[in-house]
Amino acid sequence: MAEKKEACGLIGITNHREAVYLTTLGLFSLQHRGEEAAGIAYSNGERINVKSGLGKVHDVFSNNDYDKDFPNSFQAIGHTRYSTTGKNNAKNIQPTLVDHLKGQFALAHNGNLINAKELKMELEKMGSVFQTSMDSEIFVHLIAKSKHLDFEEAIIEAVKRVRGSYSLLIMTKDTIYGIRDPQGFRPLCVGKFGDSLVVASESCALDLIEAKYMGQVHAGEMVILKNNVMEKRKIFPHPKPGQPGRLGRCIFEMIYFSRPDSLVFGKSIYSFRKATGRILAEESPVDADVVIPIPDSGNCAALGYSEKLKIPLELGITKNHYFGRSFIQPEQSERDFLVKLKLNPIKNLILRKKIVLIDDSIVRGTTTKKKIKILRSVGAKEIHLRIASPPIKHPCYFGIDFPNPKELIANNKTLAEIKKFLGLDSLAYISLAGLLKSAEENNFCVGCFSGDYPLQVKEAVTKEVLQA
Amino acid sequence: MAEKKEACGLIGITNHREAVYLTTLGLFSLQHRGEEAAGIAYSNGERINVKSGLGKVHDVFSNNDYDKDFPNSFQAIGHTRYSTTGKNNAKNIQPTLVDHLKGQFALAHNGNLINAKELKMELEKMGSVFQTSMDSEIFVHLIAKSKHLDFEEAIIEAVKRVRGSYSLLIMTKDTIYGIRDPQGFRPLCVGKFGDSLVVASESCALDLIEAKYMGQVHAGEMVILKNNVMEKRKIFPHPKPGQPGRLGRCIFEMIYFSRPDSLVFGKSIYSFRKATGRILAEESPVDADVVIPIPDSGNCAALGYSEKLKIPLELGITKNHYFGRSFIQPEQSERDFLVKLKLNPIKNLILRKKIVLIDDSIVRGTTTKKKIKILRSVGAKEIHLRIASPPIKHPCYFGIDFPNPKELIANNKTLAEIKKFLGLDSLAYISLAGLLKSAEENNFCVGCFSGDYPLQVKEAVTKEVLQA
Amino acid sequence: MAEKKEACGLIGITNHREAVYLTTLGLFSLQHRGEEAAGIAYSNGERINVKSGLGKVHDVFSNNDYDKDFPNSFQAIGHTRYSTTGKNNAKNIQPTLVDHLKGQFALAHNGNLINAKELKMELEKMGSVFQTSMDSEIFVHLIAKSKHLDFEEAIIEAVKRVRGSYSLLIMTKDTIYGIRDPQGFRPLCVGKFGDSLVVASESCALDLIEAKYMGQVHAGEMVILKNNVMEKRKIFPHPKPGQPGRLGRCIFEMIYFSRPDSLVFGKSIYSFRKATGRILAEESPVDADVVIPIPDSGNCAALGYSEKLKIPLELGITKNHYFGRSFIQPEQSERDFLVKLKLNPIKNLILRKKIVLIDDSIVRGTTTKKKIKILRSVGAKEIHLRIASPPIKHPCYFGIDFPNPKELIANNKTLAEIKKFLGLDSLAYISLAGLLKSAEENNFCVGCFSGDYPLQVKEAVTKEVLQA
Amino acid sequence: MAEKKEACGLIGITNHREAVYLTTLGLFSLQHRGEEAAGIAYSNGERINVKSGLGKVHDVFSNNDYDKDFPNSFQAIGHTRYSTTGKNNAKNIQPTLVDHLKGQFALAHNGNLINAKELKMELEKMGSVFQTSMDSEIFVHLIAKSKHLDFEEAIIEAVKRVRGSYSLLIMTKDTIYGIRDPQGFRPLCVGKFGDSLVVASESCALDLIEAKYMGQVHAGEMVILKNNVMEKRKIFPHPKPGQPGRLGRCIFEMIYFSRPDSLVFGKSIYSFRKATGRILAEESPVDADVVIPIPDSGNCAALGYSEKLKIPLELGITKNHYFGRSFIQPEQSERDFLVKLKLNPIKNLILRKKIVLIDDSIVRGTTTKKKIKILRSVGAKEIHLRIASPPIKHPCYFGIDFPNPKELIANNKTLAEIKKFLGLDSLAYISLAGLLKSAEENNFCVGCFSGDYPLQVKEAVTKEVLQA
Repeated sequence: MAEKKEACGLIGITNHREAVYLTTLGLFSLQHRGEEAAGIAYSNGERINVKSGLGKVHDVFSNNDYDKDFPNSFQAIGHTRYSTTGKNNAKNIQPTLVDHLKGQFALAHNGNLINAKELKMELEKMGSVFQTSMDSEIFVHLIAKSKHLDFEEAIIEAVKRVRGSYSLLIMTKDTIYGIRDPQGFRPLCVGKFGDSLVVASESCALDLIEAKYMGQVHAGEMVILKNNVMEKRKIFPHPKPGQPGRLGRCIFEMIYFSRPDSLVFGKSIYSFRKATGRILAEESPVDADVVIPIPDSGNCAALGYSEKLKIPLELGITKNHYFGRSFIQPEQSERDFLVKLKLNPIKNLILRKKIVLIDDSIVRGTTTKKKIKILRSVGAKEIHLRIASPPIKHPCYFGIDFPNPKELIANNKTLAEIKKFLGLDSLAYISLAGLLKSAEENNFCVGCFSGDYPLQVKEAVTKEVLQA
Repeated sequence: MAEKKEACGLIGITNHREAVYLTTLGLFSLQHRGEEAAGIAYSNGERINVKSGLGKVHDVFSNNDYDKDFPNSFQAIGHTRYSTTGKNNAKNIQPTLVDHLKGQFALAHNGNLINAKELKMELEKMGSVFQTSMDSEIFVHLIAKSKHLDFEEAIIEAVKRVRGSYSLLIMTKDTIYGIRDPQGFRPLCVGKFGDSLVVASESCALDLIEAKYMGQVHAGEMVILKNNVMEKRKIFPHPKPGQPGRLGRCIFEMIYFSRPDSLVFGKSIYSFRKATGRILAEESPVDADVVIPIPDSGNCAALGYSEKLKIPLELGITKNHYFGRSFIQPEQSERDFLVKLKLNPIKNLILRKKIVLIDDSIVRGTTTKKKIKILRSVGAKEIHLRIASPPIKHPCYFGIDFPNPKELIANNKTLAEIKKFLGLDSLAYISLAGLLKSAEENNFCVGCFSGDYPLQVKEAVTKEVLQA
Repeated sequence: MAEKKEACGLIGITNHREAVYLTTLGLFSLQHRGEEAAGIAYSNGERINVKSGLGKVHDVFSNNDYDKDFPNSFQAIGHTRYSTTGKNNAKNIQPTLVDHLKGQFALAHNGNLINAKELKMELEKMGSVFQTSMDSEIFVHLIAKSKHLDFEEAIIEAVKRVRGSYSLLIMTKDTIYGIRDPQGFRPLCVGKFGDSLVVASESCALDLIEAKYMGQVHAGEMVILKNNVMEKRKIFPHPKPGQPGRLGRCIFEMIYFSRPDSLVFGKSIYSFRKATGRILAEESPVDADVVIPIPDSGNCAALGYSEKLKIPLELGITKNHYFGRSFIQPEQSERDFLVKLKLNPIKNLILRKKIVLIDDSIVRGTTTKKKIKILRSVGAKEIHLRIASPPIKHPCYFGIDFPNPKELIANNKTLAEIKKFLGLDSLAYISLAGLLKSAEENNFCVGCFSGDYPLQVKEAVTKEVLQA
Repeated sequence: MAEKKEACGLIGITNHREAVYLTTLGLFSLQHRGEEAAGIAYSNGERINVKSGLGKVHDVFSNNDYDKDFPNSFQAIGHTRYSTTGKNNAKNIQPTLVDHLKGQFALAHNGNLINAKELKMELEKMGSVFQTSMDSEIFVHLIAKSKHLDFEEAIIEAVKRVRGSYSLLIMTKDTIYGIRDPQGFRPLCVGKFGDSLVVASESCALDLIEAKYMGQVHAGEMVILKNNVMEKRKIFPHPKPGQPGRLGRCIFEMIYFSRPDSLVFGKSIYSFRKATGRILAEESPVDADVVIPIPDSGNCAALGYSEKLKIPLELGITKNHYFGRSFIQPEQSERDFLVKLKLNPIKNLILRKKIVLIDDSIVRGTTTKKKIKILRSVGAKEIHLRIASPPIKHPCYFGIDFPNPKELIANNKTLAEIKKFLGLDSLAYISLAGLLKSAEENNFCVGCFSGDYPLQVKEAVTKEVLQA
């Protein structure tokens, strides 16, 4: 699938004379979590500055002269982001840098608040002036308004006001605070290398800079990184399983967002995805000639499926990684080449073959339909689609930018109708139980499949989503 | 491998009201043949114009307004190029457009001439003024100097003067000429869709625009495309096998350059590469836990190797496709992260495993060494490297930009020394016989492995290469 | 003189379907008031948007497509600015656009507040978060904090808290407010054309768009422009002459900043400057061969001086208007060409002549010294410098960015010493009385000459200036 | 006037370690001779390189790092150009750099050839391939074709083939050749400073770098500058006055193109222009209140006119030097603001006054008409226009880009009709005799006034101009 927009990526590094360079590298490895903008806030112990811009990490940072541009900066936090709509999006780039009586601080946020509107109105009534349309700015004003003189206490007062998903990095001139919301929706982990500490969304960022993985920042926890010392502080009580307010790690981080080489929520993404393939093979086997993944989203599950059923795997669809997102088709063009620009089937692998096609998920179904059509056009005999996640039927309020529920194909069509719409010989999704079995754990938010969310969402908010 | 620089990509389209748009799409699919510059010459029947620039296809053409910028252009040729060194490389972008008494024409070239220096000197003595440092300009001056009034005859007179590798597209205001050198070093194929014709380096360009593959332009042949009519003309006699002047398709097009979803020299690249993996498995089996390809160059061979020996395949190394080539490391940085930026191993697939690692080739060996080191660092128990091409020991005079032979590892070290240098438990290359068996054919140039070239290279030229 | 940095330029237009285009034109005519950044906020009655950027008006707006980019925008305010120091100056571009419960509004400011620090600290204590380092943002937070529900009252509450110089434009989605501080330091005037109203810093902006001049916004007054209706409201009582809090129009607006074709403070700049030349001729005549102005700052006064004494005027020094400010000299260069790049004397007009050279003012004296040296080098016999303003000895707290008082030549040297330093045959400044006589009025701030300011400046602020 | 396009500017410097920097400065001072493109070729004695680009000198060279970018370059030639029409104008930037068996050389040209077409056809027949549409490239091919082994002789052979106007700089790795055509249409002068020599279009370029003026390169002469030695060589015999082939210095260089602070053809431009004003006052006096120049083209003549008749001069029209040429008006705009953007009258100087308005020339008359209208709109009582050159009635074949003769107002209307068209109270031009008297010399090309040219122009060429 490719219709889901991506979450943000976070990384912070302390106590390293190349902190900005290593943060840039970390952002490279988190690029898949947001290609719209990137930024780094860095401190020399006296002042914090920010360099940021629209575009990919490479666009913003490739002209850095690390040996000159960031003198004595030993500490940094970075952010890649998927920008919201709106013209003035240059303003919405993170990290946000604040100069305030409480001292300079920078803030980077991954997540989505469900009481943002109320808080914003309340703050504006008291005279706060918002400069951006980002939820993240709410943290800034709550911290600024706090009567606590101690900065750490001001942060805690602020996060206790918000509801929703947030993995948060806040940097003062000498400290990085990492916070995860009580449900633990978005990932955040910590690592160590030499005398430096690192905090990041995914472990692939730690790998790149050769840091040792030290585990997750736990849900409801704050880590305080200062030089080479990490302190942990429990902010929220441990939530009770099965109750509102329970743990709710985003299962889509596992299914699609995160890199296969990452540990996320302490689990190997690659192994999880391969397991979904194996379970899918058990639940919905096909007697086929060949297993072919939709690259790259179906790769791992296809390996599991092929292995389980001893059907040969072929990388029968190639992906063109050069494809530029901003490519504009001529209006008058007769045909739609966009899917073909990205994916090309290898004819002699497909012609007259019975194919099991594997993908991670289906959102609207329109792109999947085009892919099926391409396979048909090169002579596939049968096409059996297997999907490594259950049907998506409900919106996400916690950071995944699914389309309006009305546009979700599984919300509007039966399995048989979807199969017909896509032009398939057969179609099966993994079961929810099978999915959770693959994860070997239960503490996930699966609201997009089940409609049951770990946090109660006000009716006003759900209405807004449905009418969007 | 990644140290080989890439060849150029060619595409031409006739008789289509969206000729420029389709040519752009074609260039997208040939992007892997040259990322340094791209250009398109287009004709409305009256005048030829060129749009070109440094960078990838997307950089040069993403702002095209196809509905307005190219009125009535029904015919176009495009080129992606790997630029040579030198400051003024903006001048060296192709296609080259010429305004001359003989009429306007545009020219795009993939290949390398071995009598370029002599021809250039001869032409300058007669008053020709070269504007670029490209071999390709020699064709231009030879055509301009020709006493033939007929343009087609002038082209033939010109190509008969040059020696070396060339797939060539020449466009006048109403015709596209496609020519392949007598040895057929570089590929060129033709296709058809509706009332239009297309000529391109690889068939993946035909697939993208949904054209039907109609076969190769044969070695020593000229195709003349005008509207929907293709005429063929034999320019050079069929060469005799095994003799100097024999056929010499570049085997590296098969091994590395071309896209796996292409037909090149009439053969499926994917199937060829998978076959090398199978033969390698026969020639040099290993009793291992897992087969892992170096992505993406080792993917197909790894599938063949795994399939043959029934050892499970894992995509145990991930590739970061966001990596920007122009990324500059700080000079003072202690460690080299460039390889890690591109490739990250998945620790739990490698830890304590006996691994067969598959790649297409080794050039200098330095990058391979870094990759091996990365696998060691995550706890591989044994690493057995299998290479799907023989040791590279000789220079290429026909378009592949290998380093100086002195830097080729197989030219300087024994197999045992290479194994030691790379830190391997075992190392094997496919045999030359095995390689040719995978191609099911013999008419290849394998000079980089054997030192025996299909065309004789003057001593002066070979000396120059060795002393570079 | 050229060492004074320039003030900001303001323009606002109501009720015109080409409001953005006309505002751009107005900014062109106010370009001399700030070349560092330019911006326009425009309203379609529903929403306000801003387009702005670093650079001159042309840099920011030359690629506007007026027919498409600003649909239905009938009202706009624009700003050209001289940016303060600091890296993040892109943030400091005006107009500032605010989205707030009180409604969207945009704000543009020309001037300097002398109680900015105190107000900022007070606001931050109450939780306000400043996004920029501009004084102007203080107005924004004061308005946001105001308990007044009525926007106009909120503005008035805000401006009553600040002390200093400000001409201010504030635009809501349907109204433009123009406000001048009680001393009237900076100019602001209003005009009318068709059914539209315009408010601008100088009348030259009105001329350009063919609007009729309707007089000044008076000191301490607010004008409220809505469609074609202008309402005036007295915010501050009329100040008493000669008392602290008295009127204090900036005399440097007359001497240097404003364009000669403008009416400023209701007076013709050209006529004022020519009058200073005549009075200077009376006060300090010379028996010379020729009167030559330093272009263009001395042009008008030179005309007056020449006319009064019947000495022929020659435009004996040419100015190169192509000169780019960002031109960087090589460090190793032996000679300083920067003054020569701008000014070239015409040798045959100067050789062996007794010259009266006219300029508007001297700040540090270093540039003037270079100009004198250039005239000497082409053979001037005598050089008599006449300056159309008194010696500058004191800092400006109200918007003119003079250097530190320690660097003002008239603060450190006697007249005789200055004459010697500059290498002159004679030197005279106009008297303060003569200057005010030229203006035919007394209500000016002449603090930079006399040290006596219309508003009392706190000791803390004066100390800061002296120690800068 | 502003409808004449401008000529090109040339400068060359030998034997100076800052040759490139000084050449850049020189180009700054010749910017008025061409704003479309700029370039510098520089030599370190071994190799010549070129830096050039579209735009003004500042656009192309402001980011030079003179201390690093041009190591050991002791010799350079520079060019500013007014580009011809056509899309690919980036190719047409000069200097042109040529790598050829005869050795590297760079060439910069100011002028226009009248046998360009014939020569180009002849060269193409012999196989030359032109890369640009510039006349200048003809010199390159003629030199390349020359059988002379000696480079100097090859140049001379080349220039003897061409007819038309050319001031030419040609640089080899150690020598600069400066050549002026036999009629001497375009200026070229030489200077000296320290151990360096300089050759430039106008003396203002010499002034800027503090070089001593040493006189003109004479018509038909070649100067050879090598290190600190200048050699002169007569290429063409001295032409006979009054005969075809006679001297023909372009009088428009004096009237409009050149800077007032320059010596051109050995004469002071300022003094010449002031003289035209005095003679105009004698020939066509007016009893007026005030003399006002159109800035800046009428400034000098206005001084002369005012002085002669003792009528006060006022700088009653201000010029906005910020005006950007590429400013685009909205299509739907009701009014034309372009003239107003550049020029603003000072109302109180004009209201109810009898004005003598002075300009250098009238071409189409449309812009002049707008200026008159602006003066009328601010209440001028009478407007008497005096023009410091005779009526322009004929095309220029020698480098001035006048519009088609059909569009020249003086070619289509009588004096009375022009006066009426412009809305004047009276109109007078200087006489041709008066003009030449102002120049104190007769050796000028005045073909645009008289139709009598110093070189015979083939009928084919004249026809082409008339039908353009």
